[in-house]
Amino acid sequence: MVDKKQIATEFMKLQDEICSELESFDEKGKFHEDPWIRKEGGGGRSRVIQEGRLFEKGGVNFSEVFGDTPAFLLNKSDIPKSTEQFYATGVSIVIHPLNPWVPIIHMNIRYFEKDSGECWFGGGIDLTPHYVDPLDAKYFHEHLAKLCSLHECANYADFKKNADDYFFIPHRNETRGIGGIFFDHLIPGKDFKKNELFDFVIGVGKLFTPLYIELVKRKMNQEFNNRELKWQRLRRGRYVEFNLIYDKGTKFGLETNGRIESILMSLPPQADWVYNFEPKEGSEEFLTLRYLKRGICW
Amino acid sequence: MVDKKQIATEFMKLQDEICSELESFDEKGKFHEDPWIRKEGGGGRSRVIQEGRLFEKGGVNFSEVFGDTPAFLLNKSDIPKSTEQFYATGVSIVIHPLNPWVPIIHMNIRYFEKDSGECWFGGGIDLTPHYVDPLDAKYFHEHLAKLCSLHECANYADFKKNADDYFFIPHRNETRGIGGIFFDHLIPGKDFKKNELFDFVIGVGKLFTPLYIELVKRKMNQEFNNRELKWQRLRRGRYVEFNLIYDKGTKFGLETNGRIESILMSLPPQADWVYNFEPKEGSEEFLTLRYLKRGICW
Repeated sequence: MVDKKQIATEFMKLQDEICSELESFDEKGKFHEDPWIRKEGGGGRSRVIQEGRLFEKGGVNFSEVFGDTPAFLLNKSDIPKSTEQFYATGVSIVIHPLNPWVPIIHMNIRYFEKDSGECWFGGGIDLTPHYVDPLDAKYFHEHLAKLCSLHECANYADFKKNADDYFFIPHRNETRGIGGIFFDHLIPGKDFKKNELFDFVIGVGKLFTPLYIELVKRKMNQEFNNRELKWQRLRRGRYVEFNLIYDKGTKFGLETNGRIESILMSLPPQADWVYNFEPKEGSEEFLTLRYLKRGICW
Repeated sequence: MVDKKQIATEFMKLQDEICSELESFDEKGKFHEDPWIRKEGGGGRSRVIQEGRLFEKGGVNFSEVFGDTPAFLLNKSDIPKSTEQFYATGVSIVIHPLNPWVPIIHMNIRYFEKDSGECWFGGGIDLTPHYVDPLDAKYFHEHLAKLCSLHECANYADFKKNADDYFFIPHRNETRGIGGIFFDHLIPGKDFKKNELFDFVIGVGKLFTPLYIELVKRKMNQEFNNRELKWQRLRRGRYVEFNLIYDKGTKFGLETNGRIESILMSLPPQADWVYNFEPKEGSEEFLTLRYLKRGICW
């Protein structure tokens, strides 16, 4: 049965593959690596690309942290936090493309283990187009559904609903993007073995690059103007709102004293806030807002 | 003894005065008013200025909300939330100037009352220069200290320390700006009458315009280049981080279902995040970071 060391090793390999594939596709941008150490235990390898040909800013991070369990992760029944230890490892990706017609993408896979032996997998992948193209959304979701269909432990319908709910921004009454799949607390047990869950999680990681590159290819040569760049910055503002107010990964990073530049690499290079901005009825921007709803069956 | 209606009326008057003074000083920008109604009770008058000569984006908001007390405001001893009512009124200001040499300013005064009769005042004023000028910081703090010295209920040293602590961004290990004064739970009782507390709070409100206009005048004609604009956007990014992650006013607004565009009017028109940015040793930007510490006696 796969153990935490093997999981971390596979996650690092995945990080290597993804970075090398994105780099060669971008042709200009290079990932800059910052290894870091967490004084309470563990560390990571942050890799950031900036000012690429296609990718304006993106991060592909690996981390492996352990030590005393932070208060917000303790169950009420847990022994006092000074002795309860945790272990967490994961790969986390956010890419902000230069071209507003190309979507932002996010992927995360993680493994969590407590001293007590309790352990689980979590993760997800979701797409945030600045302009929603229903054909691309359909393509994205179909590939996620197909992946899930290959793994008994994965239920696309449930995982899609999780993503719709998780990536909802209540104060804006809109979703961050067109969703994807999201899952947490996949616990090895009588239903599924640890290896089966791990295979699925690695499957999500391996799907990331081909899926995103296809979506980038579809739009990367589409011309854009100032109006579209402005809209892109407004949508990036929403991304900032979600990540700083609601995102659990950001919260986990801040509360476990992770490396701040790695945690906040998910933020866009630039974001705008315009008071009371409302797109003209019938415009591309207006149509996009109509797609930022939960429960759409792409 | 002043009651909630009179307090709200004075707050509205103050909003009128401040808007009219800022408008005539700016000469170009005009405040746009949006009245709004909160379906659970109350409403407000949001006033936003955008693309002014001096003020790139700013809001001067008045609100008066009431209804069922939100869960996060209940004491453990309170009666169940369905019956406990609250009332809150306040004026809240954030101004983002166009010129990076001119500081961002924030001011807020508020009054809170529970059904049970429990009531208190809170508020504060603080300055966030993109580039810290110690002479301006000294001027700002001296005027705040002078105001406090005129009101027995106000203790500058305590209130300054509150601001240093409140406007600290732990994940960046820096303060948002050069602080100011911050106070909460000023409760009428045997030490100070409600009217005395109210006089002080109104004093803070009345100090806002002359103090800020003097600081704007000192820097508004100083030329700036792209490098300084870039730094301004990075500092604005920190402002966004503070407001979305830590600010209690934002949290209060989101949790009481306030008007979202009014709550988030405090966000800058534009903000940048550059991975791992570090200013050159000895540069103006570097010197500014050395001033973003708690406990500096200006």
